[in-house]
Amino acid sequence: MIRVGIAGASGYTGAELIRILWSHPEVKITALTSEKQAGLPISETFPSLKGIVDLQCESLAHCDLAGKCDLIFSALPHREGMEVVGGLVKAGKKVIDLSADFRLADYKTYEKWYGVEHTQKDLLPKAVYGMPEIKREQIRNAQLVANPGCFPTGAMLGLAPVLKSGWVETSGIIIDSKTGVSGAGRNAGLPFLYPECNEGVKAYNIAIHRHTPEMEQELTGVAGKEVSVTFSPHLIPANRGILSTIYCQMAENKSLDQIWELYHREYAEEAFVRILNKGNLSNTKFVLGSNYCDIGLAKDERNNRLVITTAIDNLAKGASGLAAQNMNIMFGFPEVTGFNGPGLFP
Amino acid sequence: MIRVGIAGASGYTGAELIRILWSHPEVKITALTSEKQAGLPISETFPSLKGIVDLQCESLAHCDLAGKCDLIFSALPHREGMEVVGGLVKAGKKVIDLSADFRLADYKTYEKWYGVEHTQKDLLPKAVYGMPEIKREQIRNAQLVANPGCFPTGAMLGLAPVLKSGWVETSGIIIDSKTGVSGAGRNAGLPFLYPECNEGVKAYNIAIHRHTPEMEQELTGVAGKEVSVTFSPHLIPANRGILSTIYCQMAENKSLDQIWELYHREYAEEAFVRILNKGNLSNTKFVLGSNYCDIGLAKDERNNRLVITTAIDNLAKGASGLAAQNMNIMFGFPEVTGFNGPGLFP
Amino acid sequence: MIRVGIAGASGYTGAELIRILWSHPEVKITALTSEKQAGLPISETFPSLKGIVDLQCESLAHCDLAGKCDLIFSALPHREGMEVVGGLVKAGKKVIDLSADFRLADYKTYEKWYGVEHTQKDLLPKAVYGMPEIKREQIRNAQLVANPGCFPTGAMLGLAPVLKSGWVETSGIIIDSKTGVSGAGRNAGLPFLYPECNEGVKAYNIAIHRHTPEMEQELTGVAGKEVSVTFSPHLIPANRGILSTIYCQMAENKSLDQIWELYHREYAEEAFVRILNKGNLSNTKFVLGSNYCDIGLAKDERNNRLVITTAIDNLAKGASGLAAQNMNIMFGFPEVTGFNGPGLFP
Amino acid sequence: MIRVGIAGASGYTGAELIRILWSHPEVKITALTSEKQAGLPISETFPSLKGIVDLQCESLAHCDLAGKCDLIFSALPHREGMEVVGGLVKAGKKVIDLSADFRLADYKTYEKWYGVEHTQKDLLPKAVYGMPEIKREQIRNAQLVANPGCFPTGAMLGLAPVLKSGWVETSGIIIDSKTGVSGAGRNAGLPFLYPECNEGVKAYNIAIHRHTPEMEQELTGVAGKEVSVTFSPHLIPANRGILSTIYCQMAENKSLDQIWELYHREYAEEAFVRILNKGNLSNTKFVLGSNYCDIGLAKDERNNRLVITTAIDNLAKGASGLAAQNMNIMFGFPEVTGFNGPGLFP
Repeated sequence: MIRVGIAGASGYTGAELIRILWSHPEVKITALTSEKQAGLPISETFPSLKGIVDLQCESLAHCDLAGKCDLIFSALPHREGMEVVGGLVKAGKKVIDLSADFRLADYKTYEKWYGVEHTQKDLLPKAVYGMPEIKREQIRNAQLVANPGCFPTGAMLGLAPVLKSGWVETSGIIIDSKTGVSGAGRNAGLPFLYPECNEGVKAYNIAIHRHTPEMEQELTGVAGKEVSVTFSPHLIPANRGILSTIYCQMAENKSLDQIWELYHREYAEEAFVRILNKGNLSNTKFVLGSNYCDIGLAKDERNNRLVITTAIDNLAKGASGLAAQNMNIMFGFPEVTGFNGPGLFP
Repeated sequence: MIRVGIAGASGYTGAELIRILWSHPEVKITALTSEKQAGLPISETFPSLKGIVDLQCESLAHCDLAGKCDLIFSALPHREGMEVVGGLVKAGKKVIDLSADFRLADYKTYEKWYGVEHTQKDLLPKAVYGMPEIKREQIRNAQLVANPGCFPTGAMLGLAPVLKSGWVETSGIIIDSKTGVSGAGRNAGLPFLYPECNEGVKAYNIAIHRHTPEMEQELTGVAGKEVSVTFSPHLIPANRGILSTIYCQMAENKSLDQIWELYHREYAEEAFVRILNKGNLSNTKFVLGSNYCDIGLAKDERNNRLVITTAIDNLAKGASGLAAQNMNIMFGFPEVTGFNGPGLFP
Repeated sequence: MIRVGIAGASGYTGAELIRILWSHPEVKITALTSEKQAGLPISETFPSLKGIVDLQCESLAHCDLAGKCDLIFSALPHREGMEVVGGLVKAGKKVIDLSADFRLADYKTYEKWYGVEHTQKDLLPKAVYGMPEIKREQIRNAQLVANPGCFPTGAMLGLAPVLKSGWVETSGIIIDSKTGVSGAGRNAGLPFLYPECNEGVKAYNIAIHRHTPEMEQELTGVAGKEVSVTFSPHLIPANRGILSTIYCQMAENKSLDQIWELYHREYAEEAFVRILNKGNLSNTKFVLGSNYCDIGLAKDERNNRLVITTAIDNLAKGASGLAAQNMNIMFGFPEVTGFNGPGLFP
Repeated sequence: MIRVGIAGASGYTGAELIRILWSHPEVKITALTSEKQAGLPISETFPSLKGIVDLQCESLAHCDLAGKCDLIFSALPHREGMEVVGGLVKAGKKVIDLSADFRLADYKTYEKWYGVEHTQKDLLPKAVYGMPEIKREQIRNAQLVANPGCFPTGAMLGLAPVLKSGWVETSGIIIDSKTGVSGAGRNAGLPFLYPECNEGVKAYNIAIHRHTPEMEQELTGVAGKEVSVTFSPHLIPANRGILSTIYCQMAENKSLDQIWELYHREYAEEAFVRILNKGNLSNTKFVLGSNYCDIGLAKDERNNRLVITTAIDNLAKGASGLAAQNMNIMFGFPEVTGFNGPGLFP
């Protein structure tokens, strides 16, 4: 059994981490921090946990995370957790950071897109971008894992095979993503009130969303040459789920059958990636509450264009499930340990 | 490991049974029947199961359920599965029937409320109404369990303690229930189309719903005297969840504190019943995907009335979760085996 | 044309008032106040109004409502608008107050339930409770109309005929209401975030909700004797709509047919009350965006109980539509003026 | 007053037509046909209309549409209404056909994409594609208007200005659309059940949707040269609304400011097209129940790409509202007649 702590446990990714880790046979949750809920059992914040996980939250300042835990998940907002993560890493702890702080290798890119100073630049070379399907071996030996953003996860899983194979153009890729509202976090804000979201679909931050550089950095790594993307997020009236529809121009003359086989080959050993049958496209409904990424493929022959669809649960494979998968790799547990198979349907 | 089959696997309760049983360490699913999907893997019907449970569906006529299974769940519609269940019981198999066919001890009541003939009257005395919190010992030795209806489950858990204690009047109880749409089953019908349900709340079948006699039969058993209820179901734009608000007149002069302590006492040993803290009322959100029933209590002192709220997931504690719990009891497994703790939030 | 102003225009009732008044041939909106949006066109707050109503919001302190308007709707929160309303009334203006400040005739009841001091007690005798179907004649001559709460509107329309006729008991009435989330107002609060509400149904404030004394006061007036109610509100994942299910004991031996005829008679001249056909119950879906109240009737013969269902749009008939109807009465316009018939379906 | 009939009135576009036409001062609805509801008042089908429009439905065979009406809207499914429309046109009546039957000038394209024979080829040259913002003058004199598809409406309004000006490439345009479920019509089908749609977002028919040739035909007309598009529809858990996100490569070096001015110029006289302020993108929420199309503009400078977002209500501007607008043009009424300004918010 490893002892695990969560810093910033009172948000949605915290709740999802607790839910997933509760089922994990090798994990004991030993510390939860929350400034607002300090002194209260986490089940006051999340009544779904009542009688199951009633551990008391502590404020960060009063919680000896390093002493109580072998691994710490930081679910603190970007920038806010930077020094906390830095301190834990320096104390020799393993850390999985769910924020953006350690995802971008170049701190200047981080500072430009996030508009804040990076105070732990020395740790950036240590940080491994936690995408198991792409960087499993590095994760295995990492002390600090930067857990990917929710949008990049689905986008990268969809694009990796064709970029690696060189079958599509690396420039001008379009990623049109539709996300449920939990992606905005558990923060009271007018735009995320129920009546403001329900019965509405909106585009936002087109071409300026902060997940863009992260996608380009990692996809460039996969492709072996510069990749550029236009990324367009949309807010959808659903709690969970991200559907990404990805458009790329074919660089080589390959049939849909060949592409479909490539994806099957590429992900043959992956426990959490499913290639849909020909003719089927992705639906977030079938991955809710699970760690799966469902990939569908279509080809617009008239425009020589590949269209890839991917569906994930933004809180699971897009955040906390992925983090637990990374933990399994870091500690040598079988990668599926603690996951309960199918998601919730309907 | 026991071998388990599901007759009528392609509905929502079938999907939920598979999801729950998949996690169960003592169960192997060996047969699934579906007339519409015969010959196809169940994951074609429920893509959430793809790569996890790809077992092929068979038609009932061609499936040797008795030969393949130690226990059969029948998720067939009422009346349709009557002879199937009868045959399996006569073949010595254990059966949990999720339909209404064996819930009412008096076949005349069944025939009156359901408008069809009961062809297996001889089995009625064998059938045990599968409410563990009330009839655990009988379930332990039952060969045929009649799994309670979704509405009765929440209503009875809410009422049992005060009826048993005689603290409330047994006549004129009101049960006002709000259910998600999955309760209507997986049948294409105009009233259950998305645009017909979304942004609407409606009352239906007030005082004539078929779950009424079932509630009265079992509550009469609990109270030791005739109980009558007015039952009012409502359809809510949600996939899952039943919230029941129950009104009863106080028969004895008890404070809310005393009532609250009674509930705590009564359910102290129950794994799946949670009594909410004073001041809190039930919310289906906190039980979704779980087997819990959350009970809240309020007292209208001005009208000397107790108001009990209960929240369940209609597909879990209200159907398939409860069925799995009954299975655990019938086979001597610890009652929580196979359940994964907290539900999905948000 | 009358000149109309709205104080507190940037909430949901403000938005709905503007939408309704825009279609009114006798109304010109001449002033809108909002503290947060002062200096900005209202269409910045509500982009649905862009190009249609781009009037600039003013802060209350800088807006000469009395000078600019013949009638002022106050959509300010209770207590906050008390002096504003008082000042306008004293300046001789007609005012329709959508808050609770002038609904309760007895200031002590107000102070007890709302926990704040009433500073305009002298105006209470002038205020008319604005329920046209009950107090049309008083409204006609009123200078100050206290617009009813959203829950009381549907409850009172459902109960008035049988209370007036003395056919039901006046004590122990139960009103179980289900409301969409817009009823909570346009205020950023964690409990009203999309992911906290969606896929959840919850009970709250049972027997302690502030609309209770208002219901009892007005229903007592209708019945001619003391009426007591147990009121239970529930939050539903929908933007708009209140469904109330009302339970009362029969005091006289009347058939459902007789009751149905009573309702038809009682509301024969009412433009905005519809009695559903026998066998039909209310559905909020069919009143969304309209000023109708749809009433359904059922009788539980076994328990000698009448169950009344009413559906309204909480922002229309439950607030702003009702306010516009009151305006029509106060200014002698035909009562349906400005209303556009059917609501939005689906 | 003109006399108007609706063939196929019991679907969603029928309901929306009735709602809109009810407010129209120059229109009297004189005939409604429905096979399923023949003999029943339309308000039995749509209780929202109760007491407002209680006209009885007739079966097509028994309804003298030509005799009773000056204008007929055909809301019959494609192919089914072909001869009906043909007959009415030959009888000298004005017809607005909401199906796809007369949208494609080349019957071979129709037969290829729709897989049925076109039996009224001789009428195709008479039919005018009913997009007022593009073909107002032809509509004015048309006897037969082919009302555009819901997806093409939003897509074409978004693309017309830049295609007309030649500022973007005409090949390889991507239209990624997100539609509410009412777009699937009022037909009981498993995939459109509430629990199958709610909490899910899915892609479907990518690059093979039947609205593709319609878009290309009309956009080619606008651009003056061949336009090709990749069209990707998605199903969203909402009743109404289509958001289209449109990607095109810049052909000329124009700034976002210049593009924004172009759109303002181009649509300066249009009553139902709104160009959002710079920095704002489209949200279906702000057009629900209205006839507006809201256009947002973004430029991905890094990829030299223009991203256009458009929001419409699929049943209003995407179907019945547009049809009423076409009627206004055909009969010389001011184009906004009968429309009630802002949509419903929230």
